[in-house]
Amino acid sequence: MESFLQKAKNASRTLTSLEPKVKNTLLLEMADALEKHSDKIIAENNKDIEEGKKNNLSSALMDRLLLNTQRVADMATAIREIAALKEPVGRIIEGWVVPSGIRIEKVSIPIGVVAIIYESRPNVTSDTAALCFKSGNVCVLKGGKEANYSNIAIAKILQDVLAKNSLPREVISLLPDNSREGVAKLIKMDKYVDLIIPRGGESLIRYVSENATVPVVKHDKGVCHTFVDKSANINSAISIVINAKCQRPSACNALETLLVHEAIAPTFLPLMMEAFTANNSAVKGCENTQKYIHVELAKEEDYFTEHLSNALNIKIVSGIDEAVEHIAKYGSSHSDAIITEDYGCAEMFLNAVDSACVYVNASTRFTDGGEFGFGAEVGISTNKLHARGPMGINDLTTYKFKIYGHGQTR
Amino acid sequence: MESFLQKAKNASRTLTSLEPKVKNTLLLEMADALEKHSDKIIAENNKDIEEGKKNNLSSALMDRLLLNTQRVADMATAIREIAALKEPVGRIIEGWVVPSGIRIEKVSIPIGVVAIIYESRPNVTSDTAALCFKSGNVCVLKGGKEANYSNIAIAKILQDVLAKNSLPREVISLLPDNSREGVAKLIKMDKYVDLIIPRGGESLIRYVSENATVPVVKHDKGVCHTFVDKSANINSAISIVINAKCQRPSACNALETLLVHEAIAPTFLPLMMEAFTANNSAVKGCENTQKYIHVELAKEEDYFTEHLSNALNIKIVSGIDEAVEHIAKYGSSHSDAIITEDYGCAEMFLNAVDSACVYVNASTRFTDGGEFGFGAEVGISTNKLHARGPMGINDLTTYKFKIYGHGQTR
Repeated sequence: MESFLQKAKNASRTLTSLEPKVKNTLLLEMADALEKHSDKIIAENNKDIEEGKKNNLSSALMDRLLLNTQRVADMATAIREIAALKEPVGRIIEGWVVPSGIRIEKVSIPIGVVAIIYESRPNVTSDTAALCFKSGNVCVLKGGKEANYSNIAIAKILQDVLAKNSLPREVISLLPDNSREGVAKLIKMDKYVDLIIPRGGESLIRYVSENATVPVVKHDKGVCHTFVDKSANINSAISIVINAKCQRPSACNALETLLVHEAIAPTFLPLMMEAFTANNSAVKGCENTQKYIHVELAKEEDYFTEHLSNALNIKIVSGIDEAVEHIAKYGSSHSDAIITEDYGCAEMFLNAVDSACVYVNASTRFTDGGEFGFGAEVGISTNKLHARGPMGINDLTTYKFKIYGHGQTR
Repeated sequence: MESFLQKAKNASRTLTSLEPKVKNTLLLEMADALEKHSDKIIAENNKDIEEGKKNNLSSALMDRLLLNTQRVADMATAIREIAALKEPVGRIIEGWVVPSGIRIEKVSIPIGVVAIIYESRPNVTSDTAALCFKSGNVCVLKGGKEANYSNIAIAKILQDVLAKNSLPREVISLLPDNSREGVAKLIKMDKYVDLIIPRGGESLIRYVSENATVPVVKHDKGVCHTFVDKSANINSAISIVINAKCQRPSACNALETLLVHEAIAPTFLPLMMEAFTANNSAVKGCENTQKYIHVELAKEEDYFTEHLSNALNIKIVSGIDEAVEHIAKYGSSHSDAIITEDYGCAEMFLNAVDSACVYVNASTRFTDGGEFGFGAEVGISTNKLHARGPMGINDLTTYKFKIYGHGQTR
């Protein structure tokens, strides 16, 4: 493991000197190569699918695992889109001259070696490799075991393009020891690895956070709220809430708990419930909610739950203060919204809720790199530091200060 | 510990709603209070001094520990300067509208609860408390045991100002358990603490990095280099090197190893050595160096050493590539400089050396928040993420996305 990571670290120094044009040409070659070897990728993917059947993977997981000609073509398209993104390295973030006359430039640079731990979907392998390559980072990929054949096939095709262009294969690496023990070693290798991004189940993320000496940017769960204020436009509120809950319930930015101002509850809740029923939502509610609509009683643990399904909780609150309190206690600082026509309430909510993304009068489903205009998404950070919320390619960079003098001393 | 940190976390929510004007008024009150109670602080400091004498602290440590009327006045001045800094919270870092019509603002916010672990100098207590307060953060301070009486006295005076203005005393907290065990508990409290900044010895920093579940921004050692290229202006090189090594050898941005291009060594080294001798520097060198000047042979471990004294190493290299290699292997990614009149070499060095601060033709001693124009310094980060190099008050903030819609759904 250590000699492998040493090679990855050395490769990262090669990467920093590549011109943007060279990187983009290679990315386009990678996209072409994936399409050219589509049959090979699909044949290897079939082996994962067969294994998955033997291991009785859920149909949802099997669907995420499956590759076909269209999906391979989509992977190639994603790489071409990444090639077209604005160069993330070498941006002058700030620049100034200080009294001594030295000129300081704060310039974006690659992070170095970035390890990503993820599950099932094989397209993450090519997406992440392309994002890291474009941003000048060596990636160490640890995909799910269930997609092992597919990931090896995809990585090999990308590495062949690197090798053909005299670049080290380690620039795009799969973790050689794809086991729990391999991960345990990886996360202690701060000498070689600069950042770990775990995307996946809560237990994985907890394990990595507690044991890593390498810095971690988590892609953790979302317990998202929408608070319908007494001044809300009811039609708009219903359409936003249905979108937040129902458009894609398995997403981390989907609604889990609907908070309702007590003054609007009597008129709003029956209409809202009709819409939930029409969308097959499974609704629980607090005792007060039960006064207005027929729902099962929500228990305290429900408010902590990321359902990832059509389920949600409703809670009636006395006003914005209680809504903010509730979100602080039960939320995961991911995405929370207020629906209101009141200027003061909107501003207060935006300021008081400590979440990566705080919305007024829009669906929390917009928390997404693509929707934010980042072009491609590294993930959605639930960290408070380095990167928060949707991470674009610029979040795969850090900075250095370049200082230009002409003989200055202190 | 847990209930104490819970209070600190709650206090941080109070802080986010304070107007800049209120924060600045309170900071000025704190500065006045320190001066007003100068005698009290000095009396408590005397107890630390007495203990220090009993424990045979070094004279350097005793000097850093000592407070007198002037030094307390300086602490008050530092707080007034912090009050005058531009408001760090609420800066709109970026803002844009996406195709769906939602408006996104990336806005700076306080980090939350920041714990700082530091040593001896009691003025760090008031400086750090003021920086955290101005940036809307609750601070949990863990100062050195040798300054315990002084730190308690200073913190109490600042807390009294908070209490008089109906703010929780926890906004400026000293860690209640000021022991190794207290630190061990603190660094696992990611539920309540958002960031730990350890400033101090290597073993403390290593211990915190390896065991913390709270994110860490290290203020670690500096093994800084200056490379004198063959095209260097020799007079300028000598003056920069002497400044980098001798102006304040105990600083982390001071020179440890001088790299010299073999083509300039015969003319440069004898003149450089005269200047070192005049400044009482203790010089070691590589075998090649010994051909030109009389110095002791440097061992490999010397190149890894942060001397914090008048000692340094000289190594002759075959050119810029070997200089960059040496810095990559032995350096600490803190501050490194090239002295050159060659444009290509300057650019190559700036790009290839992966350090927080990379200089052309200036002394590495400029790596400092004050010199960078940040007004007051939180520390010098040796992390690659969140903050790198001199940390100003803006580095005590993170960001959230505020999203303004009018009914948008996906």
